[in-house]
Amino acid sequence: MLVKSIKEMRGIVKQWGKEGLSVGYVPTMGALHEGHQSLIERAALENDRVVVSVFVNPTQFGPNEDFDAYPRDIEKDCALCEKLGVHAVFSPDAQELYFPNRSTTVHVSALTDVLCGSKRPGHFDGVCLVVAKFFNILQPERAYFGQKDAQQVAVVKRMVRDLNFDLEIVACPIVRELDGLAKSSRNVYLSPQEREAALVLNRSLEIAKSALDHGERNASVLKAALLSCIVQEPLAEIDYVEIVDSESLQVLKGKITRSILIPIAVYIGKIRLIDNITYEI
Amino acid sequence: MLVKSIKEMRGIVKQWGKEGLSVGYVPTMGALHEGHQSLIERAALENDRVVVSVFVNPTQFGPNEDFDAYPRDIEKDCALCEKLGVHAVFSPDAQELYFPNRSTTVHVSALTDVLCGSKRPGHFDGVCLVVAKFFNILQPERAYFGQKDAQQVAVVKRMVRDLNFDLEIVACPIVRELDGLAKSSRNVYLSPQEREAALVLNRSLEIAKSALDHGERNASVLKAALLSCIVQEPLAEIDYVEIVDSESLQVLKGKITRSILIPIAVYIGKIRLIDNITYEI
Repeated sequence: MLVKSIKEMRGIVKQWGKEGLSVGYVPTMGALHEGHQSLIERAALENDRVVVSVFVNPTQFGPNEDFDAYPRDIEKDCALCEKLGVHAVFSPDAQELYFPNRSTTVHVSALTDVLCGSKRPGHFDGVCLVVAKFFNILQPERAYFGQKDAQQVAVVKRMVRDLNFDLEIVACPIVRELDGLAKSSRNVYLSPQEREAALVLNRSLEIAKSALDHGERNASVLKAALLSCIVQEPLAEIDYVEIVDSESLQVLKGKITRSILIPIAVYIGKIRLIDNITYEI
Repeated sequence: MLVKSIKEMRGIVKQWGKEGLSVGYVPTMGALHEGHQSLIERAALENDRVVVSVFVNPTQFGPNEDFDAYPRDIEKDCALCEKLGVHAVFSPDAQELYFPNRSTTVHVSALTDVLCGSKRPGHFDGVCLVVAKFFNILQPERAYFGQKDAQQVAVVKRMVRDLNFDLEIVACPIVRELDGLAKSSRNVYLSPQEREAALVLNRSLEIAKSALDHGERNASVLKAALLSCIVQEPLAEIDYVEIVDSESLQVLKGKITRSILIPIAVYIGKIRLIDNITYEI
C-alpha cells in the first residue's frame, strides 16, 4: 500500500500501536535492490508490520551532487515491496515534509567530521533531519540500515542514543553481486568498463582482510596495501581510504588493538562508490 | 511518585499507552510556583495522566549563569505535585541523561538569534536538546509551557513542527503575583527593595497595552514608551525591549499590522527577569 500523506501514515501506525503490533522500519531513497531487500526481509522476520519509506531526501545532497539524476522508480519499488509483504510504502512529497521556513538542524559532531562527512558537507545533517522526522512519524520499534553506509549507521546510532529515541537501530550486512561489488542504487550509472573497474573496491578490502587474518596489525601497512591495490586500476580515483575505530570512527594509526572499520570511497569515472569491512580484533 | 530512572519512566508510560491513557507533560526545572501549578492543572484537565519533569538542565545554562545557585527543593516539589494529583515526577540524574561523549545538537535557527537567544548563546540549543530527549522518553500527547518564556514556546513549537514530533504544545498564560510581578523561580533571589523595583517590568507592559488599546500602532513609539518607563527605576537595567512578530519573533519597525509579542528582559540588581505581553491586532 502506497501512502503519501503524513497524517494518513500516522493514523495507520497509531492503529497498529493500539493493536499491539510492532513496527519495523526500512528507510530508503528508492531504486530498491537486493541490499534493501535484505533489510526488508530482516524487518519482516522481527516485526509484526513493516514500513518502507521511499524518499529521495533533498537535504542530504550537496549542490553539486546527483539529486536530480538519482534513479527513481516508485512503481517498481512498490511492486517489490508488495512481493516482500511490506505493509506500507511511505513516500511523502518533499513539500509536505519540509516547510519553506524550516529552521531546525540536527547535527552529530565528531563522527561526521571524517570520511564521507568531510567530503560531503551537510550530508549527515540532512540524513539526521530526515531520519528524526521519519522516526517521529512512524514510531518504529526497530529501524534497519545497511552496513554499506557504515558511517551513516554510526551517526544514526549516536543520534538515537543522544536524543533518547525509543527504538533499536539494526545494522544489516552488505549484500554483494556475485563478483563482489557491493549493491548500490548508483551502480546503474556505471558503463560496462567502469562496472569491471569497480571491482577494485571489494578486491582491495579482501587484501586487507587477508592481511588481518595473517596477523597484520599495523594500520599504516594495511592502508598502504589498500592504496597500492586501488591505484593499479586506471579508472579509479581514491576519495578516501581509512582504518578507523568502529564506534567513534576515529582514524587509527600504528598498532591496531580493537575492532576496526575500513571504509573506502573511490570514484570510478564520475561515479563515487563506497564500501567497507569491519574486523573484530 | 518520584521516578529517577529513564528505563523505569519508559516502562510506566508504555503501560499507560497500552491502556489507552493520554499523557500530559509539564517540563520544569523545579522550584515550582503557581505558574507551574497552572500548567499542571491544565494538563490534568486535558489528559488521563500527568508527568512533571524536575530537572535543572546544565546544557541550557551559560558558563557565567546561575546553574549552581538555581533554587532546588525536590521534596517540596514532589509534595506539591502529589497534592495536584500528578501521576509521576520524573527527575533523572544528569549523568544518566547525558553521555560524556554526547555529540548531538538540535538547533533552531532564526528564532534563536534574537532576544534571549542573542543574550544567552547556546541556551536554546540546551533547551531543544533536553526537550527532545524528554519528549522521546515520555511520548506525551500534549506538553505544557508557560507563555512567560515566550521565545521558548516559539522555539519549541518550531522544533516540534520541523521534526514532526507527534504532540501538541500548549502555551499557558503568565501567572502573576497580586501586584503584577510575573511568577518566576528566580524571584526568590530578590531583596525586598529589588522586589519592589521589579514591578517596573509589568508596569511598562501595561503602559504599552494601554497605548495599543488607544490605537497606537507605531512600533517605535511603543518601544520608546516602554523604555522611558523602565529607565525611571534606578535599580533596573534594560537587557532588551522589543516589539516582534509573535510567530517569527522578527523585530517590527514602523506600523504594526499583525499580532505582536512584546518581550522584555530587565536586570533588577544582579537578577535577570523576563516578562511579555501578546497583542492581537
